[in-house]
Order: sequence, then C-alpha cells, then structure tokens
Amino acid sequence: MTEGIDNAATRIEHDPQRLAWAYLARAVQSPAPQMSKLVAEYGPIAVARAVKEGRLPETFAAATAARAHIDTAQRDLDMMAAIGGRLVTPEDPEWPQWRFLPFAGVEHEPGAGEPFALWAKGPRLLNEVTERAIGIVGTRAASSYGEHVTGELAGDLAVDGWTVVSGAAFGIDGAAHRSALGVGGATVAVLACGIDRAYPAGHSRLLRQIGQDGLVITEYPPGTTPARYRFLARNRLVAALSDGVVVVEAGWRSGARNTAAWCRKLGRPVMAVPGPVTAASSTGCNRMIREGEAALITSAADIVDVAGPIELRDDTPVVESRDTDILSGDAALVYEALPASGTRSTLELSEDSGVPIDRVRASLPLLELEGFACADETGWSRRT
Amino acid sequence: MTEGIDNAATRIEHDPQRLAWAYLARAVQSPAPQMSKLVAEYGPIAVARAVKEGRLPETFAAATAARAHIDTAQRDLDMMAAIGGRLVTPEDPEWPQWRFLPFAGVEHEPGAGEPFALWAKGPRLLNEVTERAIGIVGTRAASSYGEHVTGELAGDLAVDGWTVVSGAAFGIDGAAHRSALGVGGATVAVLACGIDRAYPAGHSRLLRQIGQDGLVITEYPPGTTPARYRFLARNRLVAALSDGVVVVEAGWRSGARNTAAWCRKLGRPVMAVPGPVTAASSTGCNRMIREGEAALITSAADIVDVAGPIELRDDTPVVESRDTDILSGDAALVYEALPASGTRSTLELSEDSGVPIDRVRASLPLLELEGFACADETGWSRRT
Repeated sequence: MTEGIDNAATRIEHDPQRLAWAYLARAVQSPAPQMSKLVAEYGPIAVARAVKEGRLPETFAAATAARAHIDTAQRDLDMMAAIGGRLVTPEDPEWPQWRFLPFAGVEHEPGAGEPFALWAKGPRLLNEVTERAIGIVGTRAASSYGEHVTGELAGDLAVDGWTVVSGAAFGIDGAAHRSALGVGGATVAVLACGIDRAYPAGHSRLLRQIGQDGLVITEYPPGTTPARYRFLARNRLVAALSDGVVVVEAGWRSGARNTAAWCRKLGRPVMAVPGPVTAASSTGCNRMIREGEAALITSAADIVDVAGPIELRDDTPVVESRDTDILSGDAALVYEALPASGTRSTLELSEDSGVPIDRVRASLPLLELEGFACADETGWSRRT
Repeated sequence: MTEGIDNAATRIEHDPQRLAWAYLARAVQSPAPQMSKLVAEYGPIAVARAVKEGRLPETFAAATAARAHIDTAQRDLDMMAAIGGRLVTPEDPEWPQWRFLPFAGVEHEPGAGEPFALWAKGPRLLNEVTERAIGIVGTRAASSYGEHVTGELAGDLAVDGWTVVSGAAFGIDGAAHRSALGVGGATVAVLACGIDRAYPAGHSRLLRQIGQDGLVITEYPPGTTPARYRFLARNRLVAALSDGVVVVEAGWRSGARNTAAWCRKLGRPVMAVPGPVTAASSTGCNRMIREGEAALITSAADIVDVAGPIELRDDTPVVESRDTDILSGDAALVYEALPASGTRSTLELSEDSGVPIDRVRASLPLLELEGFACADETGWSRRT
C-alpha cells in the first residue's frame, strides 16, 4: 500500500457509469443523503455532469462545492485497480444496504447518514462479511490485560464465524484485527483516510495483511489524510456495520465512547469489558457499565448472547423450556412488556421494558418474525 | 477472647428480667418471630418460665424444644460481663429496630426474621453505629487487587463517617475491618459463632481489636461453634444492618452472593466492584453486574451515590438544577414512574421504573419525606 494517487498506474478503460461514481465519490462530502437520493433517481452520469457544471440547486451545492472541480476519476479507479481495490457503490450487489437502514431513523443527528460510496480493498465482499459482525474497539493506550482479552474475544468470535470490525488503530483495534487474522477469520478495517494511506504508519504491514485476507474500507478517496472529524465519521460506520460493538478498554475520555454513542443511535447493543478499578485504561468501560450505557461482557459467548440473533441458547434445558425461554437480552425484556390484550406503542414498550426506544424498534421485527409479537395500526401486542 | 463458657467468671447479681432474656437467647433458635412477639406481649420472665416448664403451645415448641432444658443464663451473663460484653435485647435502647423492619415484608422467606437477641462486645452502640453503615464482603481467597480495593473503599467510607460492616472472615472481610480500624473509623463484625470463639482462629487478634474499638455481634450464645447454616443466617444480619452491601471480589459460587440475595430481599442496594475478566476472584462480581444483580461501583463516592441518603450531589450544577436533580439511584427512577395525575400502585411503579418492588417500597417514604411524592388509598402520585 505504498501507491499514492500521483503514482503512475496502468490506464484502464472504465465504464462511464463507474467513472461518474468515482468522480462523485471524491466530489461529494459523505454522508450526503440528498445527493444519494439524487443519484438513485437520475443516475450517476447525469448527476456528475450537473455537479461539474454547477447546475445543481443550492441545497445540493454544499455537499459538492469544494471539490466539484476535481476530476481524478480515471486516476482513482486506475490506482484502485492497480492495488487490487475497488469502488463499492449503492448500485453494487456488495453494498450492505440493510446495514445502513437505521440511519433513516436518526437523520436529525449531525453526521448521521449512510456513506455515499466506499473505497475497498480485499478479497471479502462487504455485504457477505458483515452478515454477522461484531465491532471490537478501544484505547490506543491498551494494557497487556486489554490486549490479551481483545485477542481472546476476537479469536473466539472469528473462529465462530463472526467478522471482527475495527478501526486499525494501535492498541485494542490492532489486537482485534490481528487475532481474527491469526485464526483465519474475517476482519474489516474501517479507515478515516484514503485506502492508500497506511495510518497509523506503524500498522502498514497489518493493513496490508487485512487488504490481502480481509477487507479494508473507507469513505475517503485515495490520498485523503486522517482528520479528527473523519475519525468520528468512521466510528459511525464501525457501529453501522456491526451487530454490536464491544469496548475492551477505554480511558475516561475515549473515542470508543463515540463509537458506542453511534451504536445506541443505530439501535445496536454496546458492550464493555470490565477491568480493575485501579487501572486508568478501564475507567471508561467501568463507567459505561455503571451508567447503563454498555452491557458487561466477559467472553465471546456473552457477546453472542447480547448481540447475536434470537436463537436457542445452549444452556436452555429442553424439558423445562417454554417458547419464550429462547428469548434473551432486549428481545426478552420487550416481550415481557408486550400486552396480552390491547396494544402498546413502541414508546410505551420502551418505558415499560427499560430498553431504549431504538433498541425496542430493532427488537420488534425479530419478535414478529419469531411469532412472539404482532402489530396493528394501534400498536404492538403479544402473540399467543 | 480466650474465655470459654466453662471458665470461671466472677458471679454477678443480674436483674431477673435480664436473666430471663439470657435464658431465652440461648433456648430460642433465632430467628423466631413468633417467640419475639410472645416475649413482647408477656415479658421475658413469664415466657422463660413457660418455655422451661414446657407449657407453650405446639406452634412455639419447635423454636425452643431442643434447648429448653439448658439454663446457663447466669454463667453466660457473667462471662459476657467478664469480657466486657453484653446481651442486647429488643427492649434495650441499643436495639436497632428500624434496621429489622424490612423483615416484615419477607416473612415467607426461609430464615428471614429479625434476630431474637444479640450478644455484643465493644464500645460502640449498635443502634448508633448502624445509623450509616455499609457492608463490605467478599471471597476469602482475595487477590492483592481485591485487598487493595477493599482497603481503599473501607478507609474512605470510614473517614467519611460510615460504619463498615462485615463478617470477619479471611480475605475481603478482614481487609475491610482492618482498613476501617486503621483510620480510626467504626466497624462491626457479625459472627456466625459465639462471641468467645475467635473464628477464624487466624483472626483472633483482629476480633480482639474490633471488640476494643468497634463492635462484635452475634445471634449465637457463648460457646457456639460456626456452622454453614449459621454463616447464611449471619449474612442476613450483615445485609439488614447496612444501607447497602458491596461485594469486592467473589468467585463464581460465593457466600457473598448469599449476602447480596438478602440485600435484595430487604430492599438494600447491592453493589459490586468489577475486576479483570481473566481473574477467577472477580467472576462472581462481574457476573452480578452483568445480570443486573449489583450496581457497578469503583469508589466510595459511587457507594454513597448508590446507598447514601437522598441529598444534594456535589456535582449538581447549582444554576441548572431542578428540584428533582437531587434525586439519584432508585429514588430518581421511582420518581420518574410516578404519575402526575392519577395514582399508581407500588407494583406498577416497580414495573415502570424497573426498580425491584422492595426497593420501590424503600424509596417511597423518602420521596414522600422530601416532598416529591404523596399517597392516598388508591396509590402513589407525583407531588408538584
């Protein structure tokens, strides 16, 4: 990954539609939901032309004004091809559209929204690799305890077929990727810079390995350098692409808490590993657990119990089981709050169950699917 | 405390009423709520005579049958006097009656009930010393981490005027007592054996020191040896005498969880210190936090926040504070569940707030006292 955008890569004949996407993927400041809708309606070629010629209405100008004049589409696509990468767009089968659906519920949040497009490198397909995925994140200043636990959790999850999503930073992130790779599992690194920029530099070898065996993705076009707001935007993608995020170690103020906040907004469970109250590297995790912001987990089994699909638990005694015994976590709490007669709104269910409303919204379709809940125009009820 | 019941102590002239109590305190298998009521109604002398002569109805016989023939009252009181101890009965001003009120709500629980009487040794008065008290308990197989954290918590609480209640066992218990003594604070050791039996033997010096500077108490008459069921009964007293109990370290199966269970039954908050997920000595604590059985705490300030009285919190910004900002813990949750119009039952408040019903019952009088809640014959409502 030493190739920069200025290196001469072989010039390839690209599809005009893909060239238009590549142009837009650099011109558009992601996320830009209105632009995404515009492209979905009029197609990338027409929109790209309109952006270049400055013919878009005022409302769209903000997202593109700064970079409309830069057209490095040919060079960007050549470079991606040269390093074995690609541009993934919402039109591609690889686009994990369902992962981004929760953004529809948080459009008022600053910085919320699905990515406009994603630059990717690696043999894994993004939609497939994020079917079952857990984010594992934490402080760069990890302790040996944190790195050890990260290795155990990521390794166990990867062996169990879960993809480990993280941010390729030093400390916990790196330990998570390494452990997943170490057991031949799947891992996705979400960057806050261009895919050609190995950041942090000390992880260039790790990133190369993830690009060979897993998947490296970013919203940012080749050559983009990391910046604080890009890390925050990146965190929302780690949350969106995961069934839940585990914070292994975090200081009192930590980027991991930002990822956790995105999780909550998107209705994904947040988990944290407890640690010694004497260790600065565990203050953030202990605090999140104490404040009820994160569920305490101690093992990969705990993680699957919290974030995994509703399924028969191994420890359910067959003889004594009732149907509802298969419910765990949010689903069990929400089910308990469902009325046997009459209906309740999602807000009422949230109040009664103590489960945040976005997680109630996430649980109800699953409960319906499993035959435990049904809805009509007045609200939700228990299905008996 | 090397005195046994067979040692010759100076013979003292005791009040006949106290001799009757001393006889009953050995004869009655505590807890025995029916016997307590009988004594409250007819007085100890009449009841003692009836027990001795086997004239009690069948329903009372069970609690006394095994030991009705043993009258060592004179010797027991002599011995207690010789070691500077005493028998504390419900008739004495020192009896912390309010501490035992919650037993009225759990009469169906096996082993529940206030003690019949308590044998005590030490300069502190039981009612005074348990005005503000925190139980600190945990595994005998404590790690250096556990002992260190215990020392910090117990020392900080004791300096702050809280009494540290524990069971005088090796490990966490011992560290808690020692730390409270070390800062000149108050500590109460609740034993599962006679007050003359230093158990564990390795703590005879510690017990002597607690008897000199704090308070050693037990339900069991002199000479009683420890037994498993007595440890379990003892745990209920640690819970009853504390505003909340902190488990610092506990293995997967631990006596501390029994103490915690008593806390929940009595409406006292249970707290736990998190620890490394790699340490066997923290598995019980991490599990209790994960299962929602205990609140995670990391400091004495956290403990006071959870178990302390409703009061202005130090971190409440004066300008932005609303009245209800002074509420924390259970009280805040229960307040949120109170209806502004109409009323709700304690059961409904428990369901809505997610706070166990016994803790709802404990919070409501405080909320009423502070002017946040009022009740009529139909239930509770918010006071505006």
